[in-house]
Amino acid sequence: MIPSRKTRPSLILFDVNETLSDMRPLALSFEDVGLAAHESEAWFAGLLRDAFALTSVGENPDFAELAAEALRLRLRTRVPDQEVLAAVDSVMQTFGRLEVHPDVVGGIRALRSAGLRLVTLSNGSTSVADGLLSRAGLLDDFEQLLSVADAPAWKPVAAAYTTALNTCGVAADEAMLVASHPWDIDGAARAGLRTGWLRRGAAGYPSYFRQPEIEAADLEELAAGIR
Amino acid sequence: MIPSRKTRPSLILFDVNETLSDMRPLALSFEDVGLAAHESEAWFAGLLRDAFALTSVGENPDFAELAAEALRLRLRTRVPDQEVLAAVDSVMQTFGRLEVHPDVVGGIRALRSAGLRLVTLSNGSTSVADGLLSRAGLLDDFEQLLSVADAPAWKPVAAAYTTALNTCGVAADEAMLVASHPWDIDGAARAGLRTGWLRRGAAGYPSYFRQPEIEAADLEELAAGIR
Repeated sequence: MIPSRKTRPSLILFDVNETLSDMRPLALSFEDVGLAAHESEAWFAGLLRDAFALTSVGENPDFAELAAEALRLRLRTRVPDQEVLAAVDSVMQTFGRLEVHPDVVGGIRALRSAGLRLVTLSNGSTSVADGLLSRAGLLDDFEQLLSVADAPAWKPVAAAYTTALNTCGVAADEAMLVASHPWDIDGAARAGLRTGWLRRGAAGYPSYFRQPEIEAADLEELAAGIR
Repeated sequence: MIPSRKTRPSLILFDVNETLSDMRPLALSFEDVGLAAHESEAWFAGLLRDAFALTSVGENPDFAELAAEALRLRLRTRVPDQEVLAAVDSVMQTFGRLEVHPDVVGGIRALRSAGLRLVTLSNGSTSVADGLLSRAGLLDDFEQLLSVADAPAWKPVAAAYTTALNTCGVAADEAMLVASHPWDIDGAARAGLRTGWLRRGAAGYPSYFRQPEIEAADLEELAAGIR
């Protein structure tokens, strides 16, 4: 008999950046300040690379500080000195004003009407999640907005997830981490959580990470699967 | 009185990828298989991001395996299915046949003639370092080629550096890590090593990492500074 893990989770822990927010406007914002649109991908990957390097040596860095500094260095040889700070501000403001993906409103409403508790857990600040969900009219659907700034370490370190679980008062196997980033799914699975991966157009899931329990094209499909 | 750390180190520990090897041919290799040249930056940053995520949860992944899988996923929606594996092989072969930067031969010779012990320490395999240095006629200048595959963890975790130091029988403050990657400088500094950053055209050094003891445009300049 297959051990049943197919009971419904009682709480969904949501990643925020890219999972809920549509980051495509960042590419346009890069163009606006004199960078190439495609550089936003390497910038975001490099920012996480550096943050995870610091995480691996026991630090808990500030997301926005790293994001702005990585951007400043990228701009430094590309735009006149006196324009660098304004360009950094411009991109960071775009980052702080992103909208949710089109499937998020329907997906969140479906999960809420099914009685699930909804919480965000971001490597970024709670203020970014607050603004994003407020603009989408979804803030009241979330019980809490959490950040690893209040945990011992960034995701994917287990303590990031377990601190959130303790705050919410649920066991790991009663909670599901929903994210578009495979490294987040991997870390949550190692910490004992259930996992739901949103593909969001990705070509596939890397074989070197623990596989998600469920996957879906977007949040509406995932919500239908969980209900 | 300023405490003197300005004595010369007895041993230089070299990072390999990008620090010694010129990775620019990878961009052309990306174009050859139907990707955009600029994607090699995001691919390499994403590969390190994922490897550091695994490092932060206690894994010690295989560099080449992650590199190939990240490439496979990037190619999957871009080239016909039957061409994906050949395209991955083609890029990975380019990666395995890179040449050293033009300043490396002169820099290594200068350090050797000054009597320093030279060792490589890579997150990749020793075979890549062996091929790279052999092609440049520099293999005999190196005492040992080391990889984190034989350590508890990847750089920038302290155990990666201390395992190498133990193998070489030197104290941390007698060794200098030379690298072009700021995350490597940061990790080595935390592990007590001395550090030399090669700018290699970078716009600057991120403020969120520990600063290098010395910096230089390339290895010839660094060697002149150490001698």
